[in-house]
Amino acid sequence: MDRLHGKNFIAGELRAGEQTFHAIAPASGEDMDPPFAVASPDDVADACKEAASAQPRFGNTSLARRAHFLRTVADKIDALGDTLTARAMAESGLPEARLQGERGRTVGQLRLFADVVERGDWQRVRIDHADPERTPPKPDLRLRMIPLGPVAVFGASNFPLAFSVAGGDTASAFAAGCCVVVKGHPAHPGTSELVAGAITDAVAECGLPGGVFSLLNGTENTLGEALVKDPDIAAVGFTGSRSGGLALMEHAASRPVPIPVYAEMSSVNPVVLLPARLEQDAEDLAAAYVGSLSLGAGQFCTNPGIVLGIEGKALDRFIDAASSAVEEVAAQTMLTSGIKRSFDAGIARLSAQNGVAVEGQGRDGVPTCAQAQIYSANGREFMANPHLAEEVFGPASIIVRCADMDELVSILCGMEGQLTATMQMSEADYERASALLPILEQLAGRIIANGWPTGVDVAHAMVHGGPFPATSDSRTTSVGTMAIERFLRPVCYQDMPQELLPEAVRNEGTGSARLVDGAVEIK
Amino acid sequence: MDRLHGKNFIAGELRAGEQTFHAIAPASGEDMDPPFAVASPDDVADACKEAASAQPRFGNTSLARRAHFLRTVADKIDALGDTLTARAMAESGLPEARLQGERGRTVGQLRLFADVVERGDWQRVRIDHADPERTPPKPDLRLRMIPLGPVAVFGASNFPLAFSVAGGDTASAFAAGCCVVVKGHPAHPGTSELVAGAITDAVAECGLPGGVFSLLNGTENTLGEALVKDPDIAAVGFTGSRSGGLALMEHAASRPVPIPVYAEMSSVNPVVLLPARLEQDAEDLAAAYVGSLSLGAGQFCTNPGIVLGIEGKALDRFIDAASSAVEEVAAQTMLTSGIKRSFDAGIARLSAQNGVAVEGQGRDGVPTCAQAQIYSANGREFMANPHLAEEVFGPASIIVRCADMDELVSILCGMEGQLTATMQMSEADYERASALLPILEQLAGRIIANGWPTGVDVAHAMVHGGPFPATSDSRTTSVGTMAIERFLRPVCYQDMPQELLPEAVRNEGTGSARLVDGAVEIK
Repeated sequence: MDRLHGKNFIAGELRAGEQTFHAIAPASGEDMDPPFAVASPDDVADACKEAASAQPRFGNTSLARRAHFLRTVADKIDALGDTLTARAMAESGLPEARLQGERGRTVGQLRLFADVVERGDWQRVRIDHADPERTPPKPDLRLRMIPLGPVAVFGASNFPLAFSVAGGDTASAFAAGCCVVVKGHPAHPGTSELVAGAITDAVAECGLPGGVFSLLNGTENTLGEALVKDPDIAAVGFTGSRSGGLALMEHAASRPVPIPVYAEMSSVNPVVLLPARLEQDAEDLAAAYVGSLSLGAGQFCTNPGIVLGIEGKALDRFIDAASSAVEEVAAQTMLTSGIKRSFDAGIARLSAQNGVAVEGQGRDGVPTCAQAQIYSANGREFMANPHLAEEVFGPASIIVRCADMDELVSILCGMEGQLTATMQMSEADYERASALLPILEQLAGRIIANGWPTGVDVAHAMVHGGPFPATSDSRTTSVGTMAIERFLRPVCYQDMPQELLPEAVRNEGTGSARLVDGAVEIK
Repeated sequence: MDRLHGKNFIAGELRAGEQTFHAIAPASGEDMDPPFAVASPDDVADACKEAASAQPRFGNTSLARRAHFLRTVADKIDALGDTLTARAMAESGLPEARLQGERGRTVGQLRLFADVVERGDWQRVRIDHADPERTPPKPDLRLRMIPLGPVAVFGASNFPLAFSVAGGDTASAFAAGCCVVVKGHPAHPGTSELVAGAITDAVAECGLPGGVFSLLNGTENTLGEALVKDPDIAAVGFTGSRSGGLALMEHAASRPVPIPVYAEMSSVNPVVLLPARLEQDAEDLAAAYVGSLSLGAGQFCTNPGIVLGIEGKALDRFIDAASSAVEEVAAQTMLTSGIKRSFDAGIARLSAQNGVAVEGQGRDGVPTCAQAQIYSANGREFMANPHLAEEVFGPASIIVRCADMDELVSILCGMEGQLTATMQMSEADYERASALLPILEQLAGRIIANGWPTGVDVAHAMVHGGPFPATSDSRTTSVGTMAIERFLRPVCYQDMPQELLPEAVRNEGTGSARLVDGAVEIK
């Protein structure tokens, strides 16, 4: 393993820069070596131009070849071994087991997308045969999905592997046949460099043009703005703060040619404790709640930030048990000093609100660590004060004592869009759960029964999305195989001779299923 | 048939208004009776509130019931008979046969969407079964598409039936389970009223809540703005001018909760005459070209506004034949005086450009009629002057004499996004066509071989969409059954007990096909 070089990756070329920045070790607050080059406006333009130039070739790779590329990226990341997890640990403050798991998730999703690419159903082939006898004559029409074009991907700080350089956005964009320009997160530039090296090697080994992938580093928002506004970029994938996502949406909408932005922003992931289940399992629920809320220092988009129950003895038991459990939660290093400052400001704001009580706190630690927090408020206070429903990114959560189910329903109906909504229920709660379900469908992209929202399986049926402001586009998911659809658009071929048609839409075709004259056919 | 009442339809209630406007007969320029009420801001808010209130019930209708509703709407429109075509003729100036055909298309697409609803594939059900043995345990995940919520539909002037009150946007929104609030086009308020009455009757007859449908009339842009900005509206469907579409996109993006806008705006639909075909069929191509360009007074989004060929004798033959043919084209009444003014301004602008020659003109008529126009320019002039590629809505088209294939390709690569791109070719052109195809895929949503772009079949594989500014969202189509997807979003159910799951995602399920553990299954 060579030492890190600190350069940007422009279509396979390593480029130094005049300005540099350092990663900061979250545990110590100290600068880490080496210095990393800040990408210049020319670097951005060159990366995007190379992506556009590589796009026709990459977008028309065969299914087998594109799948092979995705698997090669996964193999190269696997081959980085402990070097990768060691650097990611140092840059993120996350523990080794978590990062090993995250590496597995990262290569797993690349390989899952390789399978999806090969199966070919994502091409969504539709064929309507001609009918020359009809008045007017019916033409032969064939539809397939094609890649949108080069995608700008913004690495997220809280998943330095699974939602960063070779994370879900990159994997799904590659699967769709889109070249990718990553704006690396400045919290983990060394991790980014290692992964970018793996992708760059895979691009070369697979004989693909260098413009398939670039990585640009920097610390200022102007870099992201330039990337989103570059005329060669066709779509944006982002996971991060609400303010960051909103800024990218504005940049994208203000372009001469507006482009889609898939921003996954903020969510407090309400959990409803239904009465029979709460009565039965208050203590077990409390233990699981504290586990979910403090996992990874609470730095998950699906952290259970709000718990709703009907006031009474069972909810008191839950609160007591949660308060005791949270006291055992060790202080954990947060990802960055900025996130720690926001967390401190968030809990200071929350605890200063009228009617908010501190129910329990985790162990205190050094200033870089987050101390877990559990608050409570009653339903009336909660509804009256929108601050109580704002996301505090980190291990903080508020338990809302609702007067009755009507108040609980009113609170859910008044909430902003969410990634997830959860119901804890036993069979005696099914009638209430059934009445809540349509409300939760309106509220969130994923509805969980008797689980906790943290833990987002990479699967075919996963939705990691939801109404604004959980995401900028509720019609999509950023986790799971349906994520590929974000980067595709339909094209129809009318009366095109067989020999000119793309392979997917010929009579023999590719892909395991297609819609022929309105009926699904499996091959 | 009762006389027209001139009122707005607010969730089944007929409401008069203080201000009124009249339809203007395009042929005579005279006001038509009755006066139509201008919807007030309260009318907008009430219609949207009723739509939101009806949404949960309508969105959860069974597939059979929703299909029955769509067929009932079609039947009620059929039952309007000649009253409808007579009023539409008077308001639009379009001929009877065209409007009878358009009525057939309108009820046909409602019935096609009924079939699609019943088949249920649009729910896109995905099921991933649980695996408790996996580390971590794999949950049971089930995905289906649900309606986005109430949709604002803007009626288009050029299809007073097929893209207006019960047109493609309304049919696909209803099929998706979305309530609809239509902003009627002021050019044909009587036609709108008749169709709105049919829908309102169908809503009542099917026992659905009145909020499923409302129609608001008015002449000012403020009405559309209020509708798009109403918090209860979840998506927008629009067909019209570029400036109109851009304004709606801005309104939608500036909302506290931004919503998707599906605007179909402007397109010049380039047609490439490949050399061998042109040599072989110059005269026949010219006749078909003039037919396509003058159809319906050229008032189609897919009008062939630009024809590209390689300069030489064959292209001269084509131009001569087209010039002769266009002289036989009768002057046709345009839809509105505003459209006629824009057409006159557009042809005045075009003919004043350097290097643009008038090659032929149709017959002249009364001032409300459009005189068909064919221009020519060489490739160099065309590339140097962006005005030559601007849409002139109406029967006007420009033939571009390219120096060679390289220049022709450069022109295509420099064009804005289009609804369609066409190649006229014979077998000797296949190599050139094959090289052009990837360029045309980038340019347009539909690629036509040996046809003309006018005539958009309502089919499963149709794409009436394309890169900006042809539409605001190239990921979709506004014609054909895939249009339903514009108004849907995915929801995932995790570990939800069978008895609580919506019918579509239960083990027995609904819909003819679904993705189970990654493989398509047909039922």
